Amino acid sequence: MAKDYFSQWLGIKVLESGIGISKLSLVIRKEMLNGFGIAHGGITYCLADSALAFSCNSHGKKAVSVETSISHLVSLSEGDELIAEAKEEHCSNKIGTYSITVKRVSDNVLVALFKGTVYRTSKDW
Amino acid sequence: MAKDYFSQWLGIKVLESGIGISKLSLVIRKEMLNGFGIAHGGITYCLADSALAFSCNSHGKKAVSVETSISHLVSLSEGDELIAEAKEEHCSNKIGTYSITVKRVSDNVLVALFKGTVYRTSKDW
Amino acid sequence: MAKDYFSQWLGIKVLESGIGISKLSLVIRKEMLNGFGIAHGGITYCLADSALAFSCNSHGKKAVSVETSISHLVSLSEGDELIAEAKEEHCSNKIGTYSITVKRVSDNVLVALFKGTVYRTSKDW
Amino acid sequence: MAKDYFSQWLGIKVLESGIGISKLSLVIRKEMLNGFGIAHGGITYCLADSALAFSCNSHGKKAVSVETSISHLVSLSEGDELIAEAKEEHCSNKIGTYSITVKRVSDNVLVALFKGTVYRTSKDW
Repeated sequence: MAKDYFSQWLGIKVLESGIGISKLSLVIRKEMLNGFGIAHGGITYCLADSALAFSCNSHGKKAVSVETSISHLVSLSEGDELIAEAKEEHCSNKIGTYSITVKRVSDNVLVALFKGTVYRTSKDW
Repeated sequence: MAKDYFSQWLGIKVLESGIGISKLSLVIRKEMLNGFGIAHGGITYCLADSALAFSCNSHGKKAVSVETSISHLVSLSEGDELIAEAKEEHCSNKIGTYSITVKRVSDNVLVALFKGTVYRTSKDW
Repeated sequence: MAKDYFSQWLGIKVLESGIGISKLSLVIRKEMLNGFGIAHGGITYCLADSALAFSCNSHGKKAVSVETSISHLVSLSEGDELIAEAKEEHCSNKIGTYSITVKRVSDNVLVALFKGTVYRTSKDW
Repeated sequence: MAKDYFSQWLGIKVLESGIGISKLSLVIRKEMLNGFGIAHGGITYCLADSALAFSCNSHGKKAVSVETSISHLVSLSEGDELIAEAKEEHCSNKIGTYSITVKRVSDNVLVALFKGTVYRTSKDW
């Protein structure tokens, strides 16, 4: 996290981090809005992708994301606080699959659903 | 673009924008790196998602992204310049489907492949 | 189901079907194998997609699948019995989002993870 | 193809097959329809997934599909002939990424867009 400049810019907080799991939060700021005055879809993606990175790297071997998808369910506004929670669905020797939910804290509504596939290298980090 | 604060922060330049198409560029900066010293996967996603937004809103009706997926093919470093190019694959009354390629300018290598589905509202913007 | 010829060929059984949910099963037969002697990836997809159809049409309005993704976690053999379970993650006026898990009955292992987005028409069926 | 029982049932014809590419066709039959009288979404998926398999295994090493997504653009009827064409977008030592288009022969309309990620094992086949 110390050298993770983008997560710092996003203002991501690590609420939980363990083997195959992670829980991160973020608050939508003005500079994260798009031209329609709602959060750029990339912001939710970035939070979910960071949750993916924290959980898939928890085994000690460096893992890289190869394919991810996100369903955007609800539009988000300035001030909304989000929590992303990652769950390892499967982990073989080389491939890992994760699902990440993103919820809005104020009403606990699911705002995005993310699925990620990573390739697990043999390099320690 | 004037009110698109996040695209401004990303330093996105609009190279082309027309009915169903768009071409945007961005340069990877230090504050876009993750803890491994490479670009956060979210950066490429944000660029591609902006290209999606420019192309799917080109018909005059407001469209919102409902589902997107991205394949990350190559790791990216500080200083890399990227160009995202959107193509409308299908557009019905309510649903639009787009494919976006992201290439690195220096060697023209494909670095990410993005597919996006949008819901086309009946509101003008 | 009476006119659903392909689900009949697949030998799909409807274990449960309600508002936004469904639970279907299928047994892998010899004619579902690919050239490597394992189940064609399409079989798991077909089962999950049928589960999606049963759950998203449960509201009485006809819904059509616009975008789906599936992660294949485990290879499957002749004789394996599978259960797909659909969950409605979000349902707005026009768009619905569903996640479907596919498990092997013998050991309860998750063999595939499916995410689907549907467009909800205004037509009754 | 000789032992690929499911592709045989589907009536798939191999029009072209080379390093990283493939072109397959199929005709929609009555037993491929769903309860609404249109082709089950799984049929288009199966054809595209077979095209993926032919192209990603063309390098001589066994490759397995780990994550695929498909956008369904147009509904299909009995008698429609489809052609799927696979293109290798990227191929590293362990991971390959492919895009597959599915078109209807009668009017050359794009009916589905498929993206697939495979893991390349070190086993010959």
